[in-house]
Amino acid sequence: MQVYLDNNATTMCDPLVVDAMLPFFSELYGNPNSLHKFGTATHPAIKKAIDQVYTALNAGDNDDIIFTSCATESNNWVLKSVYHDLIQHGEKNHIITTEVEHPSVLATCRALEDDGVKVTYLPVNEDGVVEAHTVKSFITERTALVSVMWASNETGSIFPIKEISEVCQEKGVLFHSDAVQAIGKIPVDLTDVKVDFVSMSAHKFHGPKGVGALYIRNSRKLSPLLNGGEHMGGRRSGTLNVPYIVGMGKAIELATTNIEEKMASIRAKRDRLEDAILELDDTFVVGKRENRTPNTILISIRGVEGEGMLWDLNNGQIGASTGSACASEDLEANTVMLAIGADNELAHTGIRLSLSRFTTDEEIDYTIDHFKKAVLRLRGISSSFAKQKPTAGGEVKECELHHH
Amino acid sequence: MQVYLDNNATTMCDPLVVDAMLPFFSELYGNPNSLHKFGTATHPAIKKAIDQVYTALNAGDNDDIIFTSCATESNNWVLKSVYHDLIQHGEKNHIITTEVEHPSVLATCRALEDDGVKVTYLPVNEDGVVEAHTVKSFITERTALVSVMWASNETGSIFPIKEISEVCQEKGVLFHSDAVQAIGKIPVDLTDVKVDFVSMSAHKFHGPKGVGALYIRNSRKLSPLLNGGEHMGGRRSGTLNVPYIVGMGKAIELATTNIEEKMASIRAKRDRLEDAILELDDTFVVGKRENRTPNTILISIRGVEGEGMLWDLNNGQIGASTGSACASEDLEANTVMLAIGADNELAHTGIRLSLSRFTTDEEIDYTIDHFKKAVLRLRGISSSFAKQKPTAGGEVKECELHHH
Repeated sequence: MQVYLDNNATTMCDPLVVDAMLPFFSELYGNPNSLHKFGTATHPAIKKAIDQVYTALNAGDNDDIIFTSCATESNNWVLKSVYHDLIQHGEKNHIITTEVEHPSVLATCRALEDDGVKVTYLPVNEDGVVEAHTVKSFITERTALVSVMWASNETGSIFPIKEISEVCQEKGVLFHSDAVQAIGKIPVDLTDVKVDFVSMSAHKFHGPKGVGALYIRNSRKLSPLLNGGEHMGGRRSGTLNVPYIVGMGKAIELATTNIEEKMASIRAKRDRLEDAILELDDTFVVGKRENRTPNTILISIRGVEGEGMLWDLNNGQIGASTGSACASEDLEANTVMLAIGADNELAHTGIRLSLSRFTTDEEIDYTIDHFKKAVLRLRGISSSFAKQKPTAGGEVKECELHHH
Repeated sequence: MQVYLDNNATTMCDPLVVDAMLPFFSELYGNPNSLHKFGTATHPAIKKAIDQVYTALNAGDNDDIIFTSCATESNNWVLKSVYHDLIQHGEKNHIITTEVEHPSVLATCRALEDDGVKVTYLPVNEDGVVEAHTVKSFITERTALVSVMWASNETGSIFPIKEISEVCQEKGVLFHSDAVQAIGKIPVDLTDVKVDFVSMSAHKFHGPKGVGALYIRNSRKLSPLLNGGEHMGGRRSGTLNVPYIVGMGKAIELATTNIEEKMASIRAKRDRLEDAILELDDTFVVGKRENRTPNTILISIRGVEGEGMLWDLNNGQIGASTGSACASEDLEANTVMLAIGADNELAHTGIRLSLSRFTTDEEIDYTIDHFKKAVLRLRGISSSFAKQKPTAGGEVKECELHHH
């Protein structure tokens, strides 16, 4: 059995999405900007996809939703164009974000610091989020933008975006949210929650990798990141990626239709897996369960290095993660765990398990079984855990580990 | 019969390319940055695609080829990052380009002018190109970059890129070429021609829309346009679009293998179509035939508005263009024709026909027949043409039009 529990890194493209995309490669392949039938034949499908995204997010008619190549592009676009429009050529000098944003926000902020921007990186509290009053206390007259993720890729913790949006509105500051880990996992209603810019990426909700969007409330001015032809009203140039736009529309529709039911089903499996792992001694999960996306567990197992666990799971055909795939190559300590106050040793023990609507009960059973055995194996060879749990002869008694 | 003669706008995705991509949507869907088998299972295909692009362009081991979302991104990346690195934070202040570049170069240059950059837009000569000595005469000590297209999207005219690269090397100025219309149509050998940056887009050579690349000679420093995770060595962040990268590799291999044979076959069809149209009175083609990409004709038919011709062809199921699809929505005069000195009336008569390796002889026969009849129909209702060709009663004698 193969079990994919790394859906916060990327998801399987839903076969229904692939079916929707296929005609647009070799049959309806015209450039939508062309005036002939080969071009215009693509328009109904593009219009449908746009409608699907607006409907899924409850966006208003005056709002823009501009397709991009991914949320990394959307995040870079907002940050760099707000810098360009309001800081390089304006009176502002300050951006507020959090320590736990996706690398595409953090690395862009660091690049902007080199250009003279003052950036405040807010720490998260013990629940792994930043509260609205904290954001408010750091806003000054020179703050151009607040950028806070809607939900954490690492812990699944859901940030108080509505409250932060109200603070930003009150202070007259633009507000951007990277909603990559929220859309398709929890309801995101952009009529109810008044964010100025929202980034999203299709491959996090069973669409293809390489297409995303930026939501722009009330068609607000924002310099393009990609200048060129007048695609999408001149907001984002480049020949439209028709198959992927169609695929993103289909994927967001599939992900958000009856989302409460889908959430309940995923949550039941996630909670069962989480409860089973928590039966092990010296394990803890980051973030309150009721305030997390229903598919995510970031669990720490004292005495078990995250990378070791990852390899053991991998040998059992289970795909998991020690954290963000976008930062995983460097084998560093989990940054969110450090941010919420874990010591460096513990921050190396994080394992993220992220489910999807395709995860089955059989896969959960298999994972629980393999996971528990893996912890026993790895604690058996862990010198640090052995030191904490000394027994006669310095060996770990395996039976101890089964008790909570 | 449907005839697609707008391959400079976009191409049909080769079914072999689609076949190559398909496994990477719902089977091998892992994030290549993930450490588990779902991620690493994608690596051989990505490595193969990279090898295919290096081989096709004869790139060196020290050169970088970084996948992007399209050539528009690649062009924006080079221009904006050269601005950032050498102008905003350096001693330079000047960029040289041409009047006939793609909108993604021209619009970016205009945006950079707003930021204080001095941009020289070189006019093209009567062959529709800019010569190396002209470029040389405009380079100053403060010139940061020269950006000249490899071949024109409008006319197919091939620019003297090797000579311009030698001028730039001699002057110590960075040289970028948008090779979107050259790659897959003519040999592009980056060991022979020493350009610093080369932009390309897969959908111009029967790959998918939404993936391109930037070639960077000798891994030269260039700030990222998309900051984030350490994808592609930190040069371009965003989850890798595995299916499209695989597709681009396959497409460039198919397009460039035995390219001389493919060129000869396309050229024979193109020349037959061109010769047939030139049998009509008062028609002329822009650019010397021997100096054009073998698939392209930009033809002017006095007395026939380009848009009218486009619609007539469209009714005959023939897809053509009045020029760049990226600029075609505004129904303006053909900018290249204006640049080469056509009057405004003539610049409205341009029709671009661009073939591909999938164009058949039957399609050419059909197009010749329809095209000639369309010219007769449209000249019959053209007041401006009638004025130039008065006959008794002010009517156009149709027989006149058949003579060259």
